[in-house]
Amino acid sequence: MSSIVFEPINKRVHCSEGITIAEVARYAGVSLVSSCGSQGTCGKCRVFIISGRVSPLTIEEKEKLSAKDIERGCRLACLTRVYDEVKVKIPPKSLISSQRLQVAGNGMTAAINAVVKRYDITLSPPDMLDQKSDQTALLAYLDSQYGLKDLQIDLSAQRKLSQVLRANEWKAQIVLRGREIIMAVESGKRLLGLAVDLGTTKIAAYLADLETGEILAAKAVVNRQMAYGQDLMARLNHAMGKEAETLRQAAADDINQLVSELCKGTDLSGDQIIEAVVVGNTAMHHLFLGLPVRQLALAPYIPAVSDSMDIKARDLGLAIAPGAYVHLLPNIAGFVGADHVAVLLATGIYNTEKTTIGIDIGTNTEISLAVKDRLLSTSCASGPAFEGAHIKYGMRAEGGAIEKVKITGSSVEIRTINNEPPVGICGSGILDVVAQLRKAGIIDRMGKMLAHPRIRASEKGQEFVLVYEKESKSVNDITITETDISEILMAKAAIGAALNILLEETKLTWDEVDEILIAGAFGSYIDVASAIEIGMFAAVPMNRFSQIGNAAGTGAKLALLSKEQRELSMAITRKASYVELTNHPQYLRKFSRAIRLPA
Amino acid sequence: MSSIVFEPINKRVHCSEGITIAEVARYAGVSLVSSCGSQGTCGKCRVFIISGRVSPLTIEEKEKLSAKDIERGCRLACLTRVYDEVKVKIPPKSLISSQRLQVAGNGMTAAINAVVKRYDITLSPPDMLDQKSDQTALLAYLDSQYGLKDLQIDLSAQRKLSQVLRANEWKAQIVLRGREIIMAVESGKRLLGLAVDLGTTKIAAYLADLETGEILAAKAVVNRQMAYGQDLMARLNHAMGKEAETLRQAAADDINQLVSELCKGTDLSGDQIIEAVVVGNTAMHHLFLGLPVRQLALAPYIPAVSDSMDIKARDLGLAIAPGAYVHLLPNIAGFVGADHVAVLLATGIYNTEKTTIGIDIGTNTEISLAVKDRLLSTSCASGPAFEGAHIKYGMRAEGGAIEKVKITGSSVEIRTINNEPPVGICGSGILDVVAQLRKAGIIDRMGKMLAHPRIRASEKGQEFVLVYEKESKSVNDITITETDISEILMAKAAIGAALNILLEETKLTWDEVDEILIAGAFGSYIDVASAIEIGMFAAVPMNRFSQIGNAAGTGAKLALLSKEQRELSMAITRKASYVELTNHPQYLRKFSRAIRLPA
Repeated sequence: MSSIVFEPINKRVHCSEGITIAEVARYAGVSLVSSCGSQGTCGKCRVFIISGRVSPLTIEEKEKLSAKDIERGCRLACLTRVYDEVKVKIPPKSLISSQRLQVAGNGMTAAINAVVKRYDITLSPPDMLDQKSDQTALLAYLDSQYGLKDLQIDLSAQRKLSQVLRANEWKAQIVLRGREIIMAVESGKRLLGLAVDLGTTKIAAYLADLETGEILAAKAVVNRQMAYGQDLMARLNHAMGKEAETLRQAAADDINQLVSELCKGTDLSGDQIIEAVVVGNTAMHHLFLGLPVRQLALAPYIPAVSDSMDIKARDLGLAIAPGAYVHLLPNIAGFVGADHVAVLLATGIYNTEKTTIGIDIGTNTEISLAVKDRLLSTSCASGPAFEGAHIKYGMRAEGGAIEKVKITGSSVEIRTINNEPPVGICGSGILDVVAQLRKAGIIDRMGKMLAHPRIRASEKGQEFVLVYEKESKSVNDITITETDISEILMAKAAIGAALNILLEETKLTWDEVDEILIAGAFGSYIDVASAIEIGMFAAVPMNRFSQIGNAAGTGAKLALLSKEQRELSMAITRKASYVELTNHPQYLRKFSRAIRLPA
Repeated sequence: MSSIVFEPINKRVHCSEGITIAEVARYAGVSLVSSCGSQGTCGKCRVFIISGRVSPLTIEEKEKLSAKDIERGCRLACLTRVYDEVKVKIPPKSLISSQRLQVAGNGMTAAINAVVKRYDITLSPPDMLDQKSDQTALLAYLDSQYGLKDLQIDLSAQRKLSQVLRANEWKAQIVLRGREIIMAVESGKRLLGLAVDLGTTKIAAYLADLETGEILAAKAVVNRQMAYGQDLMARLNHAMGKEAETLRQAAADDINQLVSELCKGTDLSGDQIIEAVVVGNTAMHHLFLGLPVRQLALAPYIPAVSDSMDIKARDLGLAIAPGAYVHLLPNIAGFVGADHVAVLLATGIYNTEKTTIGIDIGTNTEISLAVKDRLLSTSCASGPAFEGAHIKYGMRAEGGAIEKVKITGSSVEIRTINNEPPVGICGSGILDVVAQLRKAGIIDRMGKMLAHPRIRASEKGQEFVLVYEKESKSVNDITITETDISEILMAKAAIGAALNILLEETKLTWDEVDEILIAGAFGSYIDVASAIEIGMFAAVPMNRFSQIGNAAGTGAKLALLSKEQRELSMAITRKASYVELTNHPQYLRKFSRAIRLPA
């Protein structure tokens, strides 16, 4: 038995000895770029071996990789076999998109027990003396062989049944979900499931074998609703007008595109997908279902629906099996949605012995605090600064984004994504900049710039030059302004104040928190030390923090593959007490205190 | 209390004294032509008073009607009030189509108890201290006020709920069907139902108030599937190829057109239709549902489905309320479908004390025989001759069709539909011709022509000239050939043999049959005496025969308005024993005997 830890998402996967890294990655839901189908010919699935024993370099790798790359431990994942505890770093370029799309979660597991089950059937061919309908014959068989009674048959299954039986000598399989027959299928076809994390910015989808639980493929796309506003409020405004249907369709189109990409190049097809789970924040959930959003967007922020739902895929325009259902996890509140419930499922913090905080940082940050038999959830508007918006040179986490900064005296060291020439600063970089500026004494506790050779005046107060055009390949100077810093301070204050309210509600101190689990794309890439430096988190020991990647996606997979996890999701939602911050008597005071940088 | 008997469909309706004939007709589901909305200005709703006391002629009628018409008892239905037991004849031209479309049934009634029920709701507005979802608030209210638990909410109802509540000060109504909330609606909207008789040739639809049982409107259209073959086998052949979806869509389009016509000019709209019932023969049923038909078209003629079904209207492409269901009555066998079950429902023969035969004559003729606790059903291929097909001058029952014939010596008297110049012969006319030719000794028992001045040679054996071009306004001579007669003899033999088999199976003689109910469009217009003359029926006393009109439509209405009638329909189907004729040892012998005309 070997194992691989994938960095930077810190995902450990056990595997058999001698298996290729590409196979393990596929199994783990980490999608590596490949255009040759893992034949060793395209040279795209580059990874870096950090430690552990692997198979020797192949001739193909020597051809494809530069001497410099080889020296740095670069290998092709499809040709490298593992024989040990191996730690592998995946450069962003080797992931399926130039964005760092999250496809791997934190590896929570549950026993496979999907809501659909298949049954073999063998009927007697009818004749002139036995002219009963195919439906009657099927129902009688299922009763006599399996004791199944009072079944309904979905129209799509009924449409297929007669021909499947006749084309296969009266042998076939039916798929049962509850008391409903939702598919009639030739024997031996794989039953597939689809788990979707419908994020505000990106949509990740996982294709699973519903019976083995194997994750067969994972893909992500940028949410095409972005065209209607990067932040949700803009989209809700569109949906309150005449574009609700357009936004709903956009989400369905994205999922359909993902289905088609997931199946591409395999012998699998979308109509084998007989169950789907979709998670998203409450707004994305409502937009996807075409539910009204006006009452959600305006105080008192009322969701149309909070319970879990099962909806025919065809009613949502999804191009999967016509009899399939889509299961939506429940929402806790208007701004703590099904995606956060999925995080709670994936992390198991709803019934841990430890006092645990689960946090998913984004434009809207959801936080839950579990302590003994209590589960408190809240959300705060942390703004888009962490995603690079409202920042002068802010950008998303794409190639060329400054993601790491170190300031020593008058020199500034930066690292960009893909080591491309710097273009701007992404969220994790901005967090670093603020922490480094404060550490170096260049800004005061309110983020005001003091004195430094790199400080200069700009149209918006002073700014600090991170990169001079003349020193780098960038097309212009890249700076951070006092206004930028103010945006970051407001974002971290929103989160810091929310965390403090939850602690106060449970009469806990930071020291009593055993674990802080940071979920989501942004949370996986931040430097936790920097987050502590700027006071977003308290300075508890670093080993209490875990960056767990796309836990919402993991939760969706759990709900896809396990009936019990769905029941748990409703139990979690009922257990969670929602703490509303907008009218909380302490929130503004705590916010204004948290806005300052630590002394 | 007054009453009206509508002829020729022989429908009796009780009504209050002083009400107009038009109102009674509307109530009875008899759709009279009108383009002025019963204002007395268009002059189209002409009827003939056969007997009984009515209001005196109005000035408007004196203007609109010719002196000759007035002399013959012609009146405008919208201006004529009844004060007595009135018998009214409706000329075909006054019915909603130039075809004699059947919209009235035989008046079977059942207590109104639709499968949908509405409930008033009044919720407390949410606020920042009570942020529960609209769904949660609704379900809690229904539990506390009505004890309703474990409810599901259809997505379409959920989509509407939040805005209906907010637009109506938190008061609204929900419509429940079983345990599913299928509609959220402002209070006071009428809940409508749709009953559809999906005939091979024409489609009749009735709009009903689901709570009062009132029939608000009735319409019929020619089935646009006719473009794919007048007989079902031709259509099934199309559907076995690539046109199943086209045929399915055609049926849905027809129903949608009917919905739009039923609502036109009223304040009602299709999205108030929250329940529909559709009946049709097994082939039409399968084509409408998009079910496979190959196994139905080929021996041993197996239906895909026989039980009743409930299918979301949106899955069938029907433009009615998005949460509505369509209920399909069960099928007895491949050639005894839901429309015949509807006839059995409407006539109540499944549990009558009398020995009764119910027969629906068409290209395919379905027959049931009820005696004591037995119910036998069968069907025979009677061919399209009764619909005018495969007959040299055959035509459908449209204006100009010869519908009545009397032969005396060398003279032939004819009557055409609408008294228009003769164009051809419709089914009832052909039946008369054969009966009259035999009576006059012009043909022998095998239909061979003997000697008569009107007999002449034709390309297909001899023919008898019914109408000489020079004597009438017809564009050519209209004749009946020996081949035509042979077609009719085969059709009547098929029916006669089927009836005899059913009698033999139950060890009954014709004399022991108390009632013969003849349903359907063709059956309503034939001269029963002629049918007896040619030996289609035995010569039992005429008063045992009733021509009951579109009983299938009536059965659909009953199933629409009464839950209990739906349960009955399944009980009927289980009770019915299907007698297969194609391989029945006696059928061919009886058929060859029945083909001869009575001595």
